[in-house]
Amino acid sequence: MRLITLLTDFGMKDWFVGAMKGVILSLQPRATVVDITHEIPTGDVRAGAFALAASYWLFPRGTIHLAVVDPGVGSQRKALAVRTTDYVFLGPDNGVLSWALARQKVRAIHALENEHYFLRNVSRTFHGRDIFSPVAAHLSRGVSIKSLGPPLLDFQRLEWPEPRQRKGRIEGQVVYIDRFGNAITNIAAGALRTLGEGTVTVLLGGNRLFPVAPFYQAVAPGRAVAVPGSCGVLEIAINGGNAARQLGLRVSDAVTVRLGEPRST
Amino acid sequence: MRLITLLTDFGMKDWFVGAMKGVILSLQPRATVVDITHEIPTGDVRAGAFALAASYWLFPRGTIHLAVVDPGVGSQRKALAVRTTDYVFLGPDNGVLSWALARQKVRAIHALENEHYFLRNVSRTFHGRDIFSPVAAHLSRGVSIKSLGPPLLDFQRLEWPEPRQRKGRIEGQVVYIDRFGNAITNIAAGALRTLGEGTVTVLLGGNRLFPVAPFYQAVAPGRAVAVPGSCGVLEIAINGGNAARQLGLRVSDAVTVRLGEPRST
Amino acid sequence: MRLITLLTDFGMKDWFVGAMKGVILSLQPRATVVDITHEIPTGDVRAGAFALAASYWLFPRGTIHLAVVDPGVGSQRKALAVRTTDYVFLGPDNGVLSWALARQKVRAIHALENEHYFLRNVSRTFHGRDIFSPVAAHLSRGVSIKSLGPPLLDFQRLEWPEPRQRKGRIEGQVVYIDRFGNAITNIAAGALRTLGEGTVTVLLGGNRLFPVAPFYQAVAPGRAVAVPGSCGVLEIAINGGNAARQLGLRVSDAVTVRLGEPRST
Repeated sequence: MRLITLLTDFGMKDWFVGAMKGVILSLQPRATVVDITHEIPTGDVRAGAFALAASYWLFPRGTIHLAVVDPGVGSQRKALAVRTTDYVFLGPDNGVLSWALARQKVRAIHALENEHYFLRNVSRTFHGRDIFSPVAAHLSRGVSIKSLGPPLLDFQRLEWPEPRQRKGRIEGQVVYIDRFGNAITNIAAGALRTLGEGTVTVLLGGNRLFPVAPFYQAVAPGRAVAVPGSCGVLEIAINGGNAARQLGLRVSDAVTVRLGEPRST
Repeated sequence: MRLITLLTDFGMKDWFVGAMKGVILSLQPRATVVDITHEIPTGDVRAGAFALAASYWLFPRGTIHLAVVDPGVGSQRKALAVRTTDYVFLGPDNGVLSWALARQKVRAIHALENEHYFLRNVSRTFHGRDIFSPVAAHLSRGVSIKSLGPPLLDFQRLEWPEPRQRKGRIEGQVVYIDRFGNAITNIAAGALRTLGEGTVTVLLGGNRLFPVAPFYQAVAPGRAVAVPGSCGVLEIAINGGNAARQLGLRVSDAVTVRLGEPRST
Repeated sequence: MRLITLLTDFGMKDWFVGAMKGVILSLQPRATVVDITHEIPTGDVRAGAFALAASYWLFPRGTIHLAVVDPGVGSQRKALAVRTTDYVFLGPDNGVLSWALARQKVRAIHALENEHYFLRNVSRTFHGRDIFSPVAAHLSRGVSIKSLGPPLLDFQRLEWPEPRQRKGRIEGQVVYIDRFGNAITNIAAGALRTLGEGTVTVLLGGNRLFPVAPFYQAVAPGRAVAVPGSCGVLEIAINGGNAARQLGLRVSDAVTVRLGEPRST
């Protein structure tokens, strides 16, 4: 497969992403390299894991997904190649792959240890360039995942915060803030139906209430709304505004959904 | 045509642009996808329209231009495909395409309504991924624009602020601020000749005057200058500085051009 | 060669990079265009030169490297094409190419003067679009560098700040701050061995001392460390932090390396 995606916290300010592409195209000139994002906050493994899980499945079968958010680069943490029914994933063994892998059928896990597939003179600070990129290129050329290193039985997982279903309410939390300031929650849009018939209201911290609606402009400009977002979960937004900034929302903040009108507390 | 350009306000921080490319490449592996920009300020349809008009014409004939600055996503606003003599344009019907289309000969306008060319399970918040990207890929594979939905007679236009030509002066305004802080105006560089022979001076707010010159370094470092910019209109710049920040310029600010020395008010 | 890299200070906010790609792909539809970075600080020729030198060598032989950090655009500064044994470099003659060229064997230097290979109606403010991009595309199609304009004997060089080796110490400086806040120095990692056997300590301003270690997490979270970085030189970092911000480091700040424990001043 010639398609390789990149997801990192390397940023667009420096030459790091260009360097990775240079390495890949030197080994596999026919590769098509697609950036998912390089602006994951520095070292934020959970944000990287979320972004990968939100996007990997939109790519053609056989795509090689490379995800490097790697604060432990150069230490003893392992580097992984994971083959699933549909894709190959490459990244450090710190959980960044785990939320994507949770939805895939895992076929093989290998540690990246065969230096034959690395750049010569591997640095201790830029495995994205020196290990992950050349390995992706070699896989793309047909190298077997088994050649990359010994098989492993398992990989590190990040805990996914499951929402709690209580009588008449669902208690969840914010799991990601996007560029628009929309606060993406862990509450599946489909779960709202389990609450029963009627108006659904979202609570933040107990005293801020607003409705669930199908799209942003269903409420007046400047008003908050919870919409079933493009990841299949509820997102808290402000029509024409920035919910995270204006409501002071952060990852892990509690979000509760219950039946009833927004006005009645 | 295999070339598809993307212009959005989705930003580079999240996976949104990567998701669009995944959808496109899944349907049309031979597509070449080029980013024009994804950093249009959130919901700023006019900035998106300007950026598209400034760049679309540099691409090969047949290019499919996809422009999504779409604060009304999920509401009743239409989604469009517009075929001109040279290109196909896709975007919401909110005017984002209109400044580019004003310079093209329009051949056909169709609403995007045929769900056969959408992703299954279209969200109400991310039509860039669920509608525009798959439609672009299908067009790239040869699907006819007529298949996409019913023909329309017209599309929404953003008003273009025409400069006013008075006796001995041209009254215009700032229409875009670029990354360098250059304030791009709506005054065509060629229109200066209509003022007559002699030195041309630019006025901001009546009391800030500076010369027109052919390039930035024609004035001393730190000095303001108006140059005929790469869009064919006057741009206000500071040699080595940031004119918008240092002069406090914003979109819609008045800019007047008249004959005479900068010193004489 | 179909591979063309772009390194500029044009930013990702506007349509400038997209415009360049449109021009290139119009002339050479088979080009593969790779962004090294477009976020070089505005007009910072030294940062551009460093980023190019840090990345150009990772690309396949024959790659055309286009580097435009060009505060003198439109003035009398020359535009260059430089062929080396391995690559072709294009850029303004202001030193932005010089640190990369210092490591290459130069075969030919030509001024870009043949307007046949420019866009028609060249602006005085956007040679990236109007001159460098079309020239890159023509070179990629096989046009000879000799056709582009007259040969030159030399090009402008930026001075490289050589570290000073004193008895028992090496005196260098910060040459680049990366997105992580790591302060990249001009002190070659290999030069540390010349100090002799024993613990190596880094001094900033005389009173801030910290150890040299092989990777970031070799010190406790929040602690400063100097690591042999991926450019082959010492980098000052903070494990899990931002060294430039937290230590107040800037380009040109003095960095000294000497033998001995960090504790003993």
